Amino acid sequence: MHDLIRGLKEKNTSKIVLLVADGLGGLPMEAGGKTELETAKTPNLDTLAAEGTVGLSTPVGPGITPGSGPGHLGLFGYDPIRHQIGRGVLEALGIGVEVGPRDVAIRGNFCTIDAEGKVTDRRAGRIPTETCVKLVELLRKGVKIDGVETLIEPVQEYRLVVRFRGDGLGANVCDTDPLQTNMHTLEPKGEDPASEKTAKIAAEFLRQAKDVLKNEKPANFLMMRGFAKFPDIEPFADIYGLNAVAVAVYPMYKGLARLVGMTVVDAGKTIADQFAVVKNNWDKYDFFFVHYKYTDKTGEDGAFDEKVKVIEALDAELPALMGLKPDVLIVTGDHSTPSKMKSHSFHPVPTILWAPATGRPDFVTEFGERACNAGGLGQFLAKDLMPLALGHAGRLQKFGA
Amino acid sequence: MHDLIRGLKEKNTSKIVLLVADGLGGLPMEAGGKTELETAKTPNLDTLAAEGTVGLSTPVGPGITPGSGPGHLGLFGYDPIRHQIGRGVLEALGIGVEVGPRDVAIRGNFCTIDAEGKVTDRRAGRIPTETCVKLVELLRKGVKIDGVETLIEPVQEYRLVVRFRGDGLGANVCDTDPLQTNMHTLEPKGEDPASEKTAKIAAEFLRQAKDVLKNEKPANFLMMRGFAKFPDIEPFADIYGLNAVAVAVYPMYKGLARLVGMTVVDAGKTIADQFAVVKNNWDKYDFFFVHYKYTDKTGEDGAFDEKVKVIEALDAELPALMGLKPDVLIVTGDHSTPSKMKSHSFHPVPTILWAPATGRPDFVTEFGERACNAGGLGQFLAKDLMPLALGHAGRLQKFGA
Repeated sequence: MHDLIRGLKEKNTSKIVLLVADGLGGLPMEAGGKTELETAKTPNLDTLAAEGTVGLSTPVGPGITPGSGPGHLGLFGYDPIRHQIGRGVLEALGIGVEVGPRDVAIRGNFCTIDAEGKVTDRRAGRIPTETCVKLVELLRKGVKIDGVETLIEPVQEYRLVVRFRGDGLGANVCDTDPLQTNMHTLEPKGEDPASEKTAKIAAEFLRQAKDVLKNEKPANFLMMRGFAKFPDIEPFADIYGLNAVAVAVYPMYKGLARLVGMTVVDAGKTIADQFAVVKNNWDKYDFFFVHYKYTDKTGEDGAFDEKVKVIEALDAELPALMGLKPDVLIVTGDHSTPSKMKSHSFHPVPTILWAPATGRPDFVTEFGERACNAGGLGQFLAKDLMPLALGHAGRLQKFGA
Repeated sequence: MHDLIRGLKEKNTSKIVLLVADGLGGLPMEAGGKTELETAKTPNLDTLAAEGTVGLSTPVGPGITPGSGPGHLGLFGYDPIRHQIGRGVLEALGIGVEVGPRDVAIRGNFCTIDAEGKVTDRRAGRIPTETCVKLVELLRKGVKIDGVETLIEPVQEYRLVVRFRGDGLGANVCDTDPLQTNMHTLEPKGEDPASEKTAKIAAEFLRQAKDVLKNEKPANFLMMRGFAKFPDIEPFADIYGLNAVAVAVYPMYKGLARLVGMTVVDAGKTIADQFAVVKNNWDKYDFFFVHYKYTDKTGEDGAFDEKVKVIEALDAELPALMGLKPDVLIVTGDHSTPSKMKSHSFHPVPTILWAPATGRPDFVTEFGERACNAGGLGQFLAKDLMPLALGHAGRLQKFGA
């Protein structure tokens, strides 16, 4: 599909907005009830649904619950099964650590080892984040490896990120976590020469770290997992010919946007800030990815009423975005996060495609899970949205004569 | 998709039931009429449809009418186009002959040849099944081949099954049926060394059979067709992590279940027996495949009213199944068998997915072809049902972070 689109893409002055309400889809809490979105009063979204075309987006495939990575790659038009993002890279992106083509990113766990070097606690008693920050500080001062640039960042509790930057580093390196206690940690081993280079650097890192941490309690060592490189993803601009900007508050979504080559700008803090940022950048870009986190957060918390409120809060700010008169406005989510399940889920995501010049209306006049099921977009794979957006924006030439 | 699922699968204590009403989908007999399912009074199925999510299952692809093999492989989550089951194997399964990895199964036709050995009747005047049984008895006594275990079983009229069991037997062997009369039967020929081994065994079998049958009338020889081996199918348990049992009355469906590695238990005779068997085995398995034959039989007979009755009979027994409180209950068919057509058809099959904890309701409150078209599952490929069932059963981990 990307090969086809690359050949058909055409520049014009149209503006496309992709508004992702994270975890938007939901479920009723009890039989006969309404979902969060069906419960929320959303006059602006309902107007968009009535004027536009709606449907249900399957993020990855039937029954597959996506993480944020695959969820967004699908919305950006990439096949999330073919383009998998390594754990280390996602962890780094999640805390705002940039990952480039020369980098290997690794998840670290502080752990406790005994006098013989055997692991007695794989999470070092879940040390508080302050301790993690302090230990990372010690590592930064005490560990020096020649020929590679090393970045160490705390995450939360016992978790940290290590990033090695250098030439010719591979990421096919085994985890050093033995996955059970009373075992020695494993030596990093590479599956190919480039990864062996990384493994040697990691081994030296761990050797020095063991010495630096030896008198600390309870976290006196660390394990490394999920060695990963920047994924081989063709940039958004090359495939679609779009000059794209990400207007996201949270590091993970900025990071995912950077992975596909979007420009990332300071988005402020609130959705009102974000829409103002879109307005201020309206002439500079063709494509605006706006990420709204709170529909997912409230869903994860199982807070049905709060999720309803954050949907309503998003709806209330929409006129600012609609006032910019985008040629194509998509409202969707990267996955569902039903409050009932307190987690991401596989359920299809309600979606609006609003394109006043080329949209074909359906009979649906409100935005909700059941309503979208009767919409003109039908049920579709998330990765099909981008070609659809380009078509509506007049950015794809006729295929064949 | 199977690679993805294999990596995400996770065990838990959930129970999944797949109830297949063979040939369930139908057509109205005349314009403006109702289908068999729409005509039937089905209070229990309607309750499941109202509480669950419905849709239409396309067994193989648009316009493709499946046999029982591809129809069931799709429902078991296998791509029926990639995994084709050879004719000989299906014929064997249909009469309850087991086929294992060392076997080659072959369909046989008794035929009539003249003094020169030319075929004068490819079906030997459609001899009655009793004659077939008698001739098979003669072959069992008279044919002996060293180094291979030979099984011969009558099917119906002029049809029989031959199974060779041995090491290194291939199945790329041409049919010996010349497909027209007044021609000699063909010599079996193998396309590769392993198949040449089988071809030599088949040639010796046919040489001895010709001698054994030479004085019989009208069936004095046989032809061999559809040489086939056990298909290369990854077991159900390995892909899905499910401990599955088949509760089917007819040999074909037991055989298909065995092909994917399900355990087959004695199912009794009636659907009430079958549901009792499910109940008695509830703690032993995770997944229950229950096969109901009569919706297909009546459809094949063109007996619209009878098909309505057997649907109602199925519905009446459903409370026994629902009382077991499965986590996921799917009601569907392997294909449509409209009474109007007296045959299998390509029409999508009405389907219910009922999963009280995670199901997303739609607006549909009854079970029928037209009603299902408005359902929350939309129109989907049969092979997508298994991943969906696993998702609803909480048996798939999140994909990516």
